[in-house]
Amino acid sequence: MDAQKPRHYTLTVSCPDAVGLVAAVSNLIASWGGWLTEVANHADRVAGRFFMRNEVAADSLSFGIEEFKERFIPLARKHRMRFEIRDSAVPRRVMILVSRQEHCLADLLHRWRTGELPFDLRGVISNHDQLRSYVEWHDVPYHHVPVSPQSKAADFDTIGGLLEEESVDLVVLARFMQILPPELCARYEARIVNIHHSFLPSFAGGRPYEQAYARGVKLVGATSHFVTAELDQGPIIEQDVVRVSHADTASDMVRLGRDVEKTVLARAVRYVVEDRVIVYGNKTVVLA
Amino acid sequence: MDAQKPRHYTLTVSCPDAVGLVAAVSNLIASWGGWLTEVANHADRVAGRFFMRNEVAADSLSFGIEEFKERFIPLARKHRMRFEIRDSAVPRRVMILVSRQEHCLADLLHRWRTGELPFDLRGVISNHDQLRSYVEWHDVPYHHVPVSPQSKAADFDTIGGLLEEESVDLVVLARFMQILPPELCARYEARIVNIHHSFLPSFAGGRPYEQAYARGVKLVGATSHFVTAELDQGPIIEQDVVRVSHADTASDMVRLGRDVEKTVLARAVRYVVEDRVIVYGNKTVVLA
Amino acid sequence: MDAQKPRHYTLTVSCPDAVGLVAAVSNLIASWGGWLTEVANHADRVAGRFFMRNEVAADSLSFGIEEFKERFIPLARKHRMRFEIRDSAVPRRVMILVSRQEHCLADLLHRWRTGELPFDLRGVISNHDQLRSYVEWHDVPYHHVPVSPQSKAADFDTIGGLLEEESVDLVVLARFMQILPPELCARYEARIVNIHHSFLPSFAGGRPYEQAYARGVKLVGATSHFVTAELDQGPIIEQDVVRVSHADTASDMVRLGRDVEKTVLARAVRYVVEDRVIVYGNKTVVLA
Amino acid sequence: MDAQKPRHYTLTVSCPDAVGLVAAVSNLIASWGGWLTEVANHADRVAGRFFMRNEVAADSLSFGIEEFKERFIPLARKHRMRFEIRDSAVPRRVMILVSRQEHCLADLLHRWRTGELPFDLRGVISNHDQLRSYVEWHDVPYHHVPVSPQSKAADFDTIGGLLEEESVDLVVLARFMQILPPELCARYEARIVNIHHSFLPSFAGGRPYEQAYARGVKLVGATSHFVTAELDQGPIIEQDVVRVSHADTASDMVRLGRDVEKTVLARAVRYVVEDRVIVYGNKTVVLA
Repeated sequence: MDAQKPRHYTLTVSCPDAVGLVAAVSNLIASWGGWLTEVANHADRVAGRFFMRNEVAADSLSFGIEEFKERFIPLARKHRMRFEIRDSAVPRRVMILVSRQEHCLADLLHRWRTGELPFDLRGVISNHDQLRSYVEWHDVPYHHVPVSPQSKAADFDTIGGLLEEESVDLVVLARFMQILPPELCARYEARIVNIHHSFLPSFAGGRPYEQAYARGVKLVGATSHFVTAELDQGPIIEQDVVRVSHADTASDMVRLGRDVEKTVLARAVRYVVEDRVIVYGNKTVVLA
Repeated sequence: MDAQKPRHYTLTVSCPDAVGLVAAVSNLIASWGGWLTEVANHADRVAGRFFMRNEVAADSLSFGIEEFKERFIPLARKHRMRFEIRDSAVPRRVMILVSRQEHCLADLLHRWRTGELPFDLRGVISNHDQLRSYVEWHDVPYHHVPVSPQSKAADFDTIGGLLEEESVDLVVLARFMQILPPELCARYEARIVNIHHSFLPSFAGGRPYEQAYARGVKLVGATSHFVTAELDQGPIIEQDVVRVSHADTASDMVRLGRDVEKTVLARAVRYVVEDRVIVYGNKTVVLA
Repeated sequence: MDAQKPRHYTLTVSCPDAVGLVAAVSNLIASWGGWLTEVANHADRVAGRFFMRNEVAADSLSFGIEEFKERFIPLARKHRMRFEIRDSAVPRRVMILVSRQEHCLADLLHRWRTGELPFDLRGVISNHDQLRSYVEWHDVPYHHVPVSPQSKAADFDTIGGLLEEESVDLVVLARFMQILPPELCARYEARIVNIHHSFLPSFAGGRPYEQAYARGVKLVGATSHFVTAELDQGPIIEQDVVRVSHADTASDMVRLGRDVEKTVLARAVRYVVEDRVIVYGNKTVVLA
Repeated sequence: MDAQKPRHYTLTVSCPDAVGLVAAVSNLIASWGGWLTEVANHADRVAGRFFMRNEVAADSLSFGIEEFKERFIPLARKHRMRFEIRDSAVPRRVMILVSRQEHCLADLLHRWRTGELPFDLRGVISNHDQLRSYVEWHDVPYHHVPVSPQSKAADFDTIGGLLEEESVDLVVLARFMQILPPELCARYEARIVNIHHSFLPSFAGGRPYEQAYARGVKLVGATSHFVTAELDQGPIIEQDVVRVSHADTASDMVRLGRDVEKTVLARAVRYVVEDRVIVYGNKTVVLA
């Protein structure tokens, strides 16, 4: 799980379960001289589905990722596999969307700048202008798109345009307090990661800490999930909680929750950019 | 927080917040020579309400609990205090209700038998007969009351009768899979502690682990709360969670959840029998 | 990770790392028609060593465990594998050793009796007689062996004899406050699991909670490890902690620690009886 | 525990335990019309010592902090109290010392800049120059003092001079990889907070993650403590841990540990600047 490890290809597979899948895949890779440096898999016996993640050392193969894909297709067809192969030398192109709350953004920027989180940050989009100087200090482009009630449709077109222009393959909503239009959710299916400031499914929707305070819970949490058209209902990637007590006001919960939000989001983004997350139905398999 | 500490009186107070409350109470007790061995309090600035818990060493007072109460009443009236004074030498009389799942019962019985949880166990009531031998090995009376659909009303009368006969002041539902009638909830207001096998308010009602599995959450939890007429909606005393993953089936969640359930219930019962829990509105103040 | 899953053989392997190991093993099993229901592995790049755990559905093979072993030996030789194959239908034969503190014993007995922990309990040995009635209620043989200073050597011979008589393959020290003689440690290498009541390597040796109290730590913990001749220095299987504060006395820490001890020991035993633990050097690989 | 609460005076007291201390203090404050908004205390029955923290709303008193002190002295003398009174409107003057690792610094700067941690940041001192631009973007003075083997004594004089110049009352070692000279430790007794990257007392001294990796522990942690002349032996303020496994290399532990380090340090600093920490012997009472 070391971000600094040598260049490798990561193959992720999702297919109907059957005898001999591990053998078939590992055998094919071994027949090329491929060195498996990490293997993880999961059989969902309820769904009858098999999931697999293989890391292959790039320098153990005499060919590149395109040929890897071509050579893998026959086996994939045979077992009706959905698969993806990624090159660790070609990090994901990421756009971060943020509103006014900056803790998740600051946390991600720090992890990105120090090399802890390996992605290619293409820019930050915000419906406010206040974080410009902070972001630009990092030499990261900052786009202010107001998303006002009157101009919402046009503003989301602008956002969609920015994502396309930068060929973004991962959108991170780092406390972006706006609901994305369904067509954007569909276009970036399983490629938009959100952080919701509650332990879902509790307290979906607005003002979760106020809801938590009113209910008198003894723990508050955060949930990172893929965004779907249905608000706060997408596949959950990661969650965590922190203890609160009667002595904590709603604003204490906000403060305590911030630490959980940023940790949970950073973990979820890490899982995604390391190709550890496979979506199936409305759930995720996280092969960590 | 030591169960083996010397005999003491515990005074718990809930009243409108005002200047000088700590002084007034501590001063009165000091004027009697009373030694405060533990003091905790909380001001809820939203509700404008003050909560207080004082432990007074019994041998520092020249009189008993009845005179303590009488001497305290004038101050209580002046500040519109709801208060309770309990003698650690007179432990609560407890009845445990259980169905077929025995992990919470076994855990409570062990803590009670070894003196960790100081209460006076009057008996166990179950709608099944299968735990009789285990309970009776502990020299604890076991009452089998079927609570069948046909006889439910009569059966709950029987249960109510057993509680009265034993002058029970705390009922513990240790996975008792039956819904108590509203009149029983009302009669034992803030004196019935339940363990619900989810992190409420998520997954209230039936089969919470199956609900959690279906939603794909990454943590499952348990909640101990006072029982009110509204199912799973009473004031929360304690909660906790445990990590699960895509690799865990619903029955794995059941197994992992059991450990959380018994720990959470044991903590909640401990808080209650040590007079640490004050209910206000639909919330609890736990002065631990 | 479900204890109730169908009969399976579990193959665990430890060998020098090399290209094609996953392929070689999975291929061999696939060539027999073997269905891999769970696969986990780990490459230790520092030690250059590979670890693997495979579960094979028993009814997918046309032969039994003895033939499995024979058929596997050539491959094992080729790759200098240390390996073990176990049949889930032949649970480990377990002896529990305990002194006066009964919380870990009670917890294990409960998990065993309700089928949560799948092992074959051959008996309980104690240097005190006080837990006899509790153990015997479970229809489990109880052996009182005093282990007094004068008779220590003979007493450990008696214990060793009981282990041999019952062909025990796992010894669980559930707070057995005696140091085992080196020859017993050697004879049952990686087959004696202990629970130490501190977060090792902190507070090895005697009275760890008193040490923790004196040092003013803010968390106390427990460690389950394999027993070696060097006290509290064996390979760690599992650890956990619980929060304490200045308000907790050493005896509060004892109480809070008990819950961690029993959870940690139960998890460690579960890992072992499910063949998830491979020892290498002074460390464990836990393929959970 | 809300940083945004109205101006208040915080009185902390440490004295020999006796009957009537809560009454004496709260009574005196009530006699001035003082509104106690938060009260916490602790009796250490082993040491026979009493600790107390009182928050008094500033606008409930007709006089300021100097008169508060004078009026309190007679009672303090009577009960041999060590006490401190602080005004929430006069935040602590803080200097942060850092080496090359920036995660704790970045975390503190973020919490300080967004107002979450209420202190008056006077500057950052580092034995390297590389964090200058980042710190100066925050409009915080940056002092590069090399602390080279040849110039160590002079360099620590420079550091001591900077602390005096800025009348610093709290020094935070945010991963400052240099051992402070004993006279500096003595001059700022209980006013230098360090973060050590292990769960002390395990792995004191250098390279704790490498030590943890070698021992094969299943959790790694961090400890924030007051600095004394004895390395890593001062009173512990806060600790926490994170789970690791056999799959984590020493550098994974470093990465996972960073999150714990910054959280633990931030909590410890918060406790200190909110006047919640009282040192007694080699331990802390944290009245949170």
